[in-house]
Amino acid sequence: MLKINTDTILAQIQSALESDDVNSAIRVLENLRSQDQADIFDDLEEAEQIALLPHLSPSVSANILEEMEDEDVLELVSALDSQDAIRIVDEMEPDEAADLLGDMDDVKAEAILAGLDNSDEIRPLMLHADDSAGGLMTSDFIALRCKMRAGDAIQVLRELRPDREEIYYLFIVDAHDVLFGVLGLRELIVAAPNTLLEEIMDPQVLAVTVGIDQEEVARVISKYDLLALPVVDVNRKLVGVITVDDVIDVIEEETTEDFQRLGGAQPLDQPYLNTSSWHIAKKRIGWLLLLFLTGSLTGTVMRMFEKELFAVVALSYFIPLLIGTGGNAGSQTTSTIIRALAVGDIDLSDALHSLWHELKVGLMLGLGMSIAAYVRAITWGTTSALALTVSLSIMIIVLWANISGAILPLLAAKLKIDPTVVSGPVMSTLVDATGLFIYFTIAKVVIGL
Amino acid sequence: MLKINTDTILAQIQSALESDDVNSAIRVLENLRSQDQADIFDDLEEAEQIALLPHLSPSVSANILEEMEDEDVLELVSALDSQDAIRIVDEMEPDEAADLLGDMDDVKAEAILAGLDNSDEIRPLMLHADDSAGGLMTSDFIALRCKMRAGDAIQVLRELRPDREEIYYLFIVDAHDVLFGVLGLRELIVAAPNTLLEEIMDPQVLAVTVGIDQEEVARVISKYDLLALPVVDVNRKLVGVITVDDVIDVIEEETTEDFQRLGGAQPLDQPYLNTSSWHIAKKRIGWLLLLFLTGSLTGTVMRMFEKELFAVVALSYFIPLLIGTGGNAGSQTTSTIIRALAVGDIDLSDALHSLWHELKVGLMLGLGMSIAAYVRAITWGTTSALALTVSLSIMIIVLWANISGAILPLLAAKLKIDPTVVSGPVMSTLVDATGLFIYFTIAKVVIGL
Repeated sequence: MLKINTDTILAQIQSALESDDVNSAIRVLENLRSQDQADIFDDLEEAEQIALLPHLSPSVSANILEEMEDEDVLELVSALDSQDAIRIVDEMEPDEAADLLGDMDDVKAEAILAGLDNSDEIRPLMLHADDSAGGLMTSDFIALRCKMRAGDAIQVLRELRPDREEIYYLFIVDAHDVLFGVLGLRELIVAAPNTLLEEIMDPQVLAVTVGIDQEEVARVISKYDLLALPVVDVNRKLVGVITVDDVIDVIEEETTEDFQRLGGAQPLDQPYLNTSSWHIAKKRIGWLLLLFLTGSLTGTVMRMFEKELFAVVALSYFIPLLIGTGGNAGSQTTSTIIRALAVGDIDLSDALHSLWHELKVGLMLGLGMSIAAYVRAITWGTTSALALTVSLSIMIIVLWANISGAILPLLAAKLKIDPTVVSGPVMSTLVDATGLFIYFTIAKVVIGL
Repeated sequence: MLKINTDTILAQIQSALESDDVNSAIRVLENLRSQDQADIFDDLEEAEQIALLPHLSPSVSANILEEMEDEDVLELVSALDSQDAIRIVDEMEPDEAADLLGDMDDVKAEAILAGLDNSDEIRPLMLHADDSAGGLMTSDFIALRCKMRAGDAIQVLRELRPDREEIYYLFIVDAHDVLFGVLGLRELIVAAPNTLLEEIMDPQVLAVTVGIDQEEVARVISKYDLLALPVVDVNRKLVGVITVDDVIDVIEEETTEDFQRLGGAQPLDQPYLNTSSWHIAKKRIGWLLLLFLTGSLTGTVMRMFEKELFAVVALSYFIPLLIGTGGNAGSQTTSTIIRALAVGDIDLSDALHSLWHELKVGLMLGLGMSIAAYVRAITWGTTSALALTVSLSIMIIVLWANISGAILPLLAAKLKIDPTVVSGPVMSTLVDATGLFIYFTIAKVVIGL
């Protein structure tokens, strides 16, 4: 494996730039693989990036920008003069160019579009939402007519300019550009030259419509092990193609959002260190406040049992432990159920089955924990009545946490809310308040308060 | 998009099987796409699966088994007689066949291997760990000598049996099978027939060695947008190829493990509903008990402040709310940091930067929450001294939760422990106990107990 030493190369480029030797800096950079170029370029200061960009060959610049974060690209290209910007954007993949221009202010975007060779390829791509099939697709694909012969198709491939998104599927359309079939490059090569493409193509071609959500696109590509998925309009006319590498990025992005939501925050939508602390705080404060308000229900429950707490202050010693264990058991369940829903291991028709599963798991865990809690309470020198209270409470709380940890994400899915949004912290707040209620109620009966 | 109605088709097949009409059942099934075949087959009862499998064509059976869960495949194939098993395994991808045989008991595996046509392709694959590059790779790839001419290469492709894993990269090796370069099928087609492959190949080919972990493989393929990645031994001899579709499965599997660990449980390693509740409980009880024991530290802290709790019972009303908020703030931070580490947005060299980031975020959130807490306490009719205590405590607890929520995953990464394993529930247990200590200490000073 060819490894590169990022730090050394970065230092070389920076020292070349300091001594105004832009040409050596460019030489060093252009010798790398395009993804490594992007990595190194990304590590430069913004001023260095702006100094270097217009001097790189437009195709190298385009490659670098395609690998960088959308917001950084927007800043850089906005800092370039229009002519430089046009030369670079012209070399970008149409889908990437459309994303960039869509994020720009309209006047600037229009100025660049007017100068582009392939602006009529890019304009339609700008109409689609970023997270839809239309926003993900490229218009840089090869479509051939079904009545063409294999030998002529190979001739067409020879004459086309080599594309950067390597294309291994050829899409077969009829005279009205309606998608008809798909043909692997390998099948084309091995076919007799005078075979019609429609005879060797696979007519069972999968496609999605432009408006489909990117998560659904990822699911289809992953399930059917595709390298590329055609996108069609309502009339089944072929309008674009989504490639598997873009889908891997989508999966990564969606997983990051799920993680942040599971932690009880709104997704940041950009890399962590590029996000200002003010922006991060804004994404978090909403949930924190909401959970604080619902969480203050625990205070209400405790006031209801003021008399009991006065009588046996030792009751309060076990509160954090009980609600902590309930929260842990609940989050074990929610995270499992959320993920099982996400990967399709379960769907809503399995709701009862899952609930039954967690009921059994909750019973086992509750029993185990109640024994542990009894032993711990006794070794602390607690009265046996209180130890019994704690032990019974933890059993019921764990069972209850497992059940609500399963119900909440399933209910969210049923209501078409993203389960990751509501399940984690909501579950723990719910289990906190109800757990206390369970504890004090058992205490009243067992200790006889 | 070609959609199929799973339920109808499933019912058709089941009723055909009930009336012993195996042939119609097979006809219905064989008309579907291979992934849909697998889905439908998966939904059949095990007895129905065993009845159907020997009658399907071996290549269809192989396709179906490749899409199913490893453990289900193991059970099914073990239930077949040796001759049927051999016919089916012979049609499976070498990497899938190796995984299956590796999971079987040795005698049975040897019996099947002895009957296979391609056993010498499969045996070496069985030597590698399932989660290494060697365990992921297939030996079903095309390697051509660098001195071969383009025209001859196309002839070779024509003569090879069509492979099921569609191959779009040709790997170029020297006379000793040492990896030399890579060539896209498209470049081959457009080259003049008498060009040497070494003239048109890309010599900057990326490769991994057999022992590399599958997560690293996924990272390389995702970063460099590859469709396939060659695997070499220590002498750079080409031994296998990993395709992008397998990598998507790896990413999915690793994410599932991360989710389950983040929820404070050991990964299940198999789909949720296929896992017995006893097995799930076993995967969860360990962490639950451990956190219970460390969590009982909260009880110890509360006993330390027995006198204060006796004097002001109302202090206890705010305990669940305070530690709940601390836990929420902490889990917002850990989940963000864990994910940023996982996708490479930050690494250990960014530890101080990240900490500084969370310090600022924690200050802002702490300030905001302390205002909310003061207002809430006063509207509850709490004394202003207690309201001030709660308000100050929540500020410090949130700040502290943010800092420890950042330190814990970074520390884990530094110690080469998976951050997801330790960070979530450990953070909340830590914040619970220290949060109480902070609260009571402030109470002593402010209320003057």
